[in-house]
Amino acid sequence: MTDHESVPLARPIGADEHRERRERLLAHPEAAGLDALIWWGNHRVMYLSGFAFVPTERPIALVIAASGESVLFVPRLEVEHAEAYAHVDRVISYPEYPDRVHPMQHLADELRALGVTGRFGGDGDGYPKVMGYRGPRLSDVTGAAFAPLDDALETMMQVKSPAEVALIRESARWGARAHELLQERTAVGRSETEVEDEAASLANAELLAAYAGSYRPMSWGRSGPHAGYRGQIGSHSALPHSLTTNAVFQAGDTLVTGASCPMFGYWSELERTMVMGEPSDAQRTWFAHMLALQDLAIDACRPGRSCASVDEAVRAYVHEHGLGDAWRHHVGHNIGLRYHEGPFLDVGDETVMQPGMLFTVEPGLYVPGLGGFRHSDTILVTDGEPAFLTEYPRDLERLIIPAG
Amino acid sequence: MTDHESVPLARPIGADEHRERRERLLAHPEAAGLDALIWWGNHRVMYLSGFAFVPTERPIALVIAASGESVLFVPRLEVEHAEAYAHVDRVISYPEYPDRVHPMQHLADELRALGVTGRFGGDGDGYPKVMGYRGPRLSDVTGAAFAPLDDALETMMQVKSPAEVALIRESARWGARAHELLQERTAVGRSETEVEDEAASLANAELLAAYAGSYRPMSWGRSGPHAGYRGQIGSHSALPHSLTTNAVFQAGDTLVTGASCPMFGYWSELERTMVMGEPSDAQRTWFAHMLALQDLAIDACRPGRSCASVDEAVRAYVHEHGLGDAWRHHVGHNIGLRYHEGPFLDVGDETVMQPGMLFTVEPGLYVPGLGGFRHSDTILVTDGEPAFLTEYPRDLERLIIPAG
Repeated sequence: MTDHESVPLARPIGADEHRERRERLLAHPEAAGLDALIWWGNHRVMYLSGFAFVPTERPIALVIAASGESVLFVPRLEVEHAEAYAHVDRVISYPEYPDRVHPMQHLADELRALGVTGRFGGDGDGYPKVMGYRGPRLSDVTGAAFAPLDDALETMMQVKSPAEVALIRESARWGARAHELLQERTAVGRSETEVEDEAASLANAELLAAYAGSYRPMSWGRSGPHAGYRGQIGSHSALPHSLTTNAVFQAGDTLVTGASCPMFGYWSELERTMVMGEPSDAQRTWFAHMLALQDLAIDACRPGRSCASVDEAVRAYVHEHGLGDAWRHHVGHNIGLRYHEGPFLDVGDETVMQPGMLFTVEPGLYVPGLGGFRHSDTILVTDGEPAFLTEYPRDLERLIIPAG
Repeated sequence: MTDHESVPLARPIGADEHRERRERLLAHPEAAGLDALIWWGNHRVMYLSGFAFVPTERPIALVIAASGESVLFVPRLEVEHAEAYAHVDRVISYPEYPDRVHPMQHLADELRALGVTGRFGGDGDGYPKVMGYRGPRLSDVTGAAFAPLDDALETMMQVKSPAEVALIRESARWGARAHELLQERTAVGRSETEVEDEAASLANAELLAAYAGSYRPMSWGRSGPHAGYRGQIGSHSALPHSLTTNAVFQAGDTLVTGASCPMFGYWSELERTMVMGEPSDAQRTWFAHMLALQDLAIDACRPGRSCASVDEAVRAYVHEHGLGDAWRHHVGHNIGLRYHEGPFLDVGDETVMQPGMLFTVEPGLYVPGLGGFRHSDTILVTDGEPAFLTEYPRDLERLIIPAG
């Protein structure tokens, strides 16, 4: 169904865009008067430098001096990796964690040399407790004061650039391809895991052939397109965040899927409700309600409206049709370098939608014994109509798996 | 090489052990006088209740009242999942995050009912900023004071029970099986990803057949055995924490692998250095140094010695043989529910080793242009000799991939 030939290959975010993001952040009103901005969170470091790494107990920090100079602070083992991939002015390193001299002491020395003596901002006053890391506050070892600035960065990250949207669209294209293969191979008597393995392997081979060496997931734990059920099979599909149980498919099962592909660090989300064999009346009824909910939620993703209003519209329908017992969660979340990020399509989130914001739109209905009913599409808020980045059939007839 | 028939199937940690862990924690001197212990970190919640979940912006907390009662606080969408799998006395829920009433308000009401009015301990004064979560301190909404108790729990988690060791040993057995398949299928001209996909699919099928429905990874993002290169191929193998690049294997490549399998939440680590075709003199020399380092480090994993002493022994050898330019990182880390955890085999970690502690022993040497040289084995500290939980050939001759 998808034509892989006609679409230009995606490229990673370039050094110019990373520099522009850092400059925009330095120009933020809350950054005024700070000697430097210091970022620890791996997705924040990636957003501002393009450096994708495996976060461990060894601290990594991106330092953006008020002068504009960008310095990546890494353990010795990451030096060559950082020099090859990070879009920064300099890479500096410390030997190891915990070592005899703590990494925060090394960082304090570097910061002193950079003139960071008064105040610094960022996403934490030191490295968080990742994988057993322990260490002092950076303010204690430097004498400089810490000002939290993560809300400013989060707000920036909420609105995607054209280059980011292109990567998420490409992620969605490959997620959809894996989903096609998953749907084709799912059959009564087969197991969740074997079908998922086949779909991922085949889609991955197609992607690698298309990219001829230039594909990088910039993610850890996963590479390439994948699609699966995460245990949401039969009555287990009524558990929305289930984990894999390796069920065997049976006629009558309600299935809930998920598909994506890390694309130079960026993610999309595609989920579909499918049925094994001829749907029962109950399955048809719940599917139709779910689709009506998703239609009205997608239509509500427009600039100037609040995120809350989308969830309110869904909850009003749920209430009006007496479906409250099947309700479990809000409508969706932003997505980008992280699979979930704010703002949320939730009655409690008053963020006003803007063009360039993205949302997974995934209202769900869950019926114990029968199953879960949820589609998720990744939707871009535009100046005009809401735009689907995920393209995959949504109607029940095309989501029935033959079980004859 | 591995005989899958003769080994009894592993079972998840039972409710009795989870209860015993909670009781031991309540009896900790630092828990005296606290009204409750409250845990947010997903691995900590899993360690104390057996509940494995996908951490998102929706807070989940395990509350252990001073009375011993255990209460799991989850969003509505996790209720059925928690009731099916968590070894706790009660599951309580809130509708959604952020919602109109913040989850911390709901939790404060529950805590008041539990009599938590004075002081509570745990791993944080509120839920951390996961995936865009924002919220108040729990002390602010309850009026009770917070006392950090994560060090006490981390110390408990450092020493594995017999049931935990059995799960990690079983993880290692399946990781080794995936590694065998990886080694068999790696060949000149093939790509990293296709070989990894094949090894994982085949090993996974064997595991699922052996477990006949009772296997649960209790992990997210991965299920089943897997083995791969993570980009550590040819000159890229000199980057110890590289990410996948989907290289194509060439004669002369130095390869560094990694293999594991989530087993009811528990992990092991197996890594091997392999060479494509007849090793060069330089590859033989560096391999021999690496193996000598690993031998002496494993032999040093004995009760009563410090973790630091293991790293000191390795660094002394590195210094004595003039290998300092190839040194990048400490010797290893503890492993369990988390892939890395403390203590660390590092000159800065004075923790005294005890029977039941586990370490990845993985001293590495990295030579730009030539590649990386690192084996990793998962080693159990015992009353007697250090015990290998990973069983896989370590000598160069059996790690040469034919490239004729």
